[in-house]
Amino acid sequence: MSSVLSGIKIAVVGGDDRELILVNELVRMGATVTVCGFPREIVGHGAFVLNNPEEACKGAEVVVLPLPGTSSEGVIRAVYAEQELKLTEKTIAALAPHALVMIGTAREFLKKWVGERKLNLLEVAEIDEIAVLNSIPTAEGAIQIAMEETDFTIHGSNSCVIGFGRIGITLARNLKALGSEVTVVARNRGQLARAYEMGCNQAELNDLKEIMHSADLAFNTIPHLVLDRTVLKYANPHAVIIDLAAQPGGTDFEAANHYGLKAILAPGLPGKVAPLSAGKILANVIPGLIIKELVKQEQVSMFA
Amino acid sequence: MSSVLSGIKIAVVGGDDRELILVNELVRMGATVTVCGFPREIVGHGAFVLNNPEEACKGAEVVVLPLPGTSSEGVIRAVYAEQELKLTEKTIAALAPHALVMIGTAREFLKKWVGERKLNLLEVAEIDEIAVLNSIPTAEGAIQIAMEETDFTIHGSNSCVIGFGRIGITLARNLKALGSEVTVVARNRGQLARAYEMGCNQAELNDLKEIMHSADLAFNTIPHLVLDRTVLKYANPHAVIIDLAAQPGGTDFEAANHYGLKAILAPGLPGKVAPLSAGKILANVIPGLIIKELVKQEQVSMFA
Amino acid sequence: MSSVLSGIKIAVVGGDDRELILVNELVRMGATVTVCGFPREIVGHGAFVLNNPEEACKGAEVVVLPLPGTSSEGVIRAVYAEQELKLTEKTIAALAPHALVMIGTAREFLKKWVGERKLNLLEVAEIDEIAVLNSIPTAEGAIQIAMEETDFTIHGSNSCVIGFGRIGITLARNLKALGSEVTVVARNRGQLARAYEMGCNQAELNDLKEIMHSADLAFNTIPHLVLDRTVLKYANPHAVIIDLAAQPGGTDFEAANHYGLKAILAPGLPGKVAPLSAGKILANVIPGLIIKELVKQEQVSMFA
Amino acid sequence: MSSVLSGIKIAVVGGDDRELILVNELVRMGATVTVCGFPREIVGHGAFVLNNPEEACKGAEVVVLPLPGTSSEGVIRAVYAEQELKLTEKTIAALAPHALVMIGTAREFLKKWVGERKLNLLEVAEIDEIAVLNSIPTAEGAIQIAMEETDFTIHGSNSCVIGFGRIGITLARNLKALGSEVTVVARNRGQLARAYEMGCNQAELNDLKEIMHSADLAFNTIPHLVLDRTVLKYANPHAVIIDLAAQPGGTDFEAANHYGLKAILAPGLPGKVAPLSAGKILANVIPGLIIKELVKQEQVSMFA
Repeated sequence: MSSVLSGIKIAVVGGDDRELILVNELVRMGATVTVCGFPREIVGHGAFVLNNPEEACKGAEVVVLPLPGTSSEGVIRAVYAEQELKLTEKTIAALAPHALVMIGTAREFLKKWVGERKLNLLEVAEIDEIAVLNSIPTAEGAIQIAMEETDFTIHGSNSCVIGFGRIGITLARNLKALGSEVTVVARNRGQLARAYEMGCNQAELNDLKEIMHSADLAFNTIPHLVLDRTVLKYANPHAVIIDLAAQPGGTDFEAANHYGLKAILAPGLPGKVAPLSAGKILANVIPGLIIKELVKQEQVSMFA
Repeated sequence: MSSVLSGIKIAVVGGDDRELILVNELVRMGATVTVCGFPREIVGHGAFVLNNPEEACKGAEVVVLPLPGTSSEGVIRAVYAEQELKLTEKTIAALAPHALVMIGTAREFLKKWVGERKLNLLEVAEIDEIAVLNSIPTAEGAIQIAMEETDFTIHGSNSCVIGFGRIGITLARNLKALGSEVTVVARNRGQLARAYEMGCNQAELNDLKEIMHSADLAFNTIPHLVLDRTVLKYANPHAVIIDLAAQPGGTDFEAANHYGLKAILAPGLPGKVAPLSAGKILANVIPGLIIKELVKQEQVSMFA
Repeated sequence: MSSVLSGIKIAVVGGDDRELILVNELVRMGATVTVCGFPREIVGHGAFVLNNPEEACKGAEVVVLPLPGTSSEGVIRAVYAEQELKLTEKTIAALAPHALVMIGTAREFLKKWVGERKLNLLEVAEIDEIAVLNSIPTAEGAIQIAMEETDFTIHGSNSCVIGFGRIGITLARNLKALGSEVTVVARNRGQLARAYEMGCNQAELNDLKEIMHSADLAFNTIPHLVLDRTVLKYANPHAVIIDLAAQPGGTDFEAANHYGLKAILAPGLPGKVAPLSAGKILANVIPGLIIKELVKQEQVSMFA
Repeated sequence: MSSVLSGIKIAVVGGDDRELILVNELVRMGATVTVCGFPREIVGHGAFVLNNPEEACKGAEVVVLPLPGTSSEGVIRAVYAEQELKLTEKTIAALAPHALVMIGTAREFLKKWVGERKLNLLEVAEIDEIAVLNSIPTAEGAIQIAMEETDFTIHGSNSCVIGFGRIGITLARNLKALGSEVTVVARNRGQLARAYEMGCNQAELNDLKEIMHSADLAFNTIPHLVLDRTVLKYANPHAVIIDLAAQPGGTDFEAANHYGLKAILAPGLPGKVAPLSAGKILANVIPGLIIKELVKQEQVSMFA
């Protein structure tokens, strides 16, 4: 048992199997951890399970909310919770002064509450380290879906990867490694140069109609309507579309259905296809982020 | 429509989706094709669907039996057949003189019937071209199972591939490409040298106990009992074993169960996970084999 | 012959084999091209060879100066020039109004001259597309040097790549692909996550001493003194250091020499090891940049 | 110091840097080692340097002759020898009864001498383990030559690999990994299936004319005249041919010269480009082969 986080009170509110792994790590590092949204019997020793977010957050210096965040009504994603878990202003008010609020992406109401109380907000979904590491289970999950939904092999297939950010890069590499002929579709010419260096074909968004005409597999990572009706109209009727962009994705699913195309919206893959690996990512990265923020605050308060 | 096989009568008896693709190709190449074991409505135009193997084989110069062959009682694998399809001596007797009999692997009784009639027998499962090409869907299918049965990613996992023949080589490359730390277990030192060249760790069969102790994923391709009770006793309890060797595989499944290990026997993956790709393999290779055999016979008969 | 650049006067001043390929492409696209710093006989048909920069630039709407740019005294890199080629204020003054000045990286004096005349300056070395594409010949050149300077194979070697920008990524991929055990050393945790995803080991700059202790090959891409005396003191005495950072590199070469380490400064590899490929990069990218800038200016002048 | 080879007298006659590494390993394993063909000062401690092959072999139970073997006149390859080293019948006669003679490939005269004395002959060049491991420095050496002899990058080039044995497989993988578009030319359809699985294009020897017409790089590994005048006549005039087959290679070098093609015969690369790695291969494999042979002989003599 380490003591790096000794004396720090951390609340983990909602989430899935990943948070259970994170909780164990935080306990191991000496933190006082309160948990809410999980039945007692699946939470590791040393953490305190409480009944509601407000109780869990009482006096906490850090609260960890899940990567997928909350609905616009404040409902916290909590797959093991027996009843709806809601993030209220009271919950936030229960935190210690200067507390750190960690969440995948914060809705406006949360930003407001945090801002009014001068708490620290850290939106972790955009932290490069987490996003890149999470691209690994995301890409594998996308490939698993492709394998399950097709009657052909990835090897020898024509695939296209739309968008070449953190997920697109990992996915393109894996598809290529498995023997697919990969076309990367992106706007940024520097990204297309990287795709070329990796051995992929390059295309611009304008070329999407032609690309989809011959694609067996299409993976979208752009959170805008790129696979719209006009593009889908001419798509290979046997193509399978796997949309990895944040909900509602970048595919016109109604049009896809109309044209007889199989299109699957697949958000949040890491927690679904590889919760153990995805949990280890959180357990590896979150404590470091907490320490960094606490050190920063201390420095600020020293000069305050 | 080509005419390379024009005038040749070919019977396709039993099989699955792969044979449907093969039938289309044979028709396209001009052969007269009779089919048995499939409902009329899923067989492509130009082929004649008959009621039983004997009828289908009447006067045929070539009969194509499925890759998985027959049971020891002569039951032909035929997933679409409404009733059991049986290979009888009468069926073989109905073939044209000097006919070519193609099958994955022939049982003793078939070898006898064919021998007595001086027909030509071609066991295609061992033809290197088919075996290597089939290793692609086999490896992808094995990886798909691994993805489905685990809560961690292939990337970062410790995997071991037991046996380094046609399937082992393809599987090791794919696992490595997806970021697994791969150990190849084999007896032949030349094969281990190749594994090393491909970036894998090498181990001998004697080391299997230690290897299994730290493996997250184990893929067996050796058709002998290599994963026996003594090896499984010390295996990583979270390991998933996927056995790709011909039935009954190389794993003591009872022992695996006893030690709480997840072990899956996964034969015949190509036809299951990627029937389209696997069918194209047959459609690409079988016609060439037929032509080669017919040319050979003609040359023989010219000098007879 | 295309006419996209028809009527545009472009001066190409100095450079090496790459510029000869670019000149041909500009001519092919219809531009009026003047060249300086190359003997007449090696310049393709259709371009006008002039005696000095000023003449070449007279009335030109675009001037292309080489990627390696000029010395601090204004001497233009021009490997084929018989006498020193100097960039003077007069040269810049000879350009057409609103002309576009393209150069790898501009020195202060050039920025000043361009600014005073309200010309457009485009520093192409930092354009992502060119930098990523140039990383390909750079990485291959670095590997060629490593092969030449060692008595061991890349396969099985311990290598480290210091810095994980455009060159570092390409180099790490290639070393890994050839079977080296690659450690990426960088500060940014997102970059290290990417290195991990690519199958490399990760280390921070603080770990450099230990990494160098066991490295057989070290490639530096960081333009600061990272391989200093304290790091080199404990380096593997058989290690070969290849420094790819802009002059003067990031290695204390004197210290390397003192400790008996082989250390090589290797700037400007694309033009040296693969001038044809590197020239095609310029020929593919520069015309597009010119067109984009001209369109931008036109739009500006329309509203002026 | 181990004692596995304790009491065994081994003569190492001729060779290059690789044998020096082997000698050290044999000494380390406890053997009594005599050496000939190297100056005293470069041979490691513990080995006895003698003046001529006969002296070195006197009473030796094992003699290790170099991988490249001898000329047809019996001259042993010995790059460090001050005078010609010759393998005579007397040398062989000086060996202990039942001695083991190891050499890359034996000439007829050696086979005769060994046979008459009932010695054991082991031709190591064909031992799969050594041949596969040696394919690694061979492939890297070939790539190094390609990089040095061309003005373009491997990435983006059209390359062809003729022959798909141990060297061809390694070379194709490396070229592909560096981003070349690789076509494998071979007769065996199982080999071509493997090439396809590895992501390469496939072609038959009949297609060589067309393939060479568009190839930028050609690597031959077939020891027959495959790149003959008729093929070279239509080859891409900018192509570089690197012939790795045993002397005299498989290229009509005169014709290549006539058609202005750059063609390079590159035999024995491991000892030239990576003597350290190649020496370690010998040091890893040869002792095991010696032990295996000695055990075999003992078993034979026990039953004699």
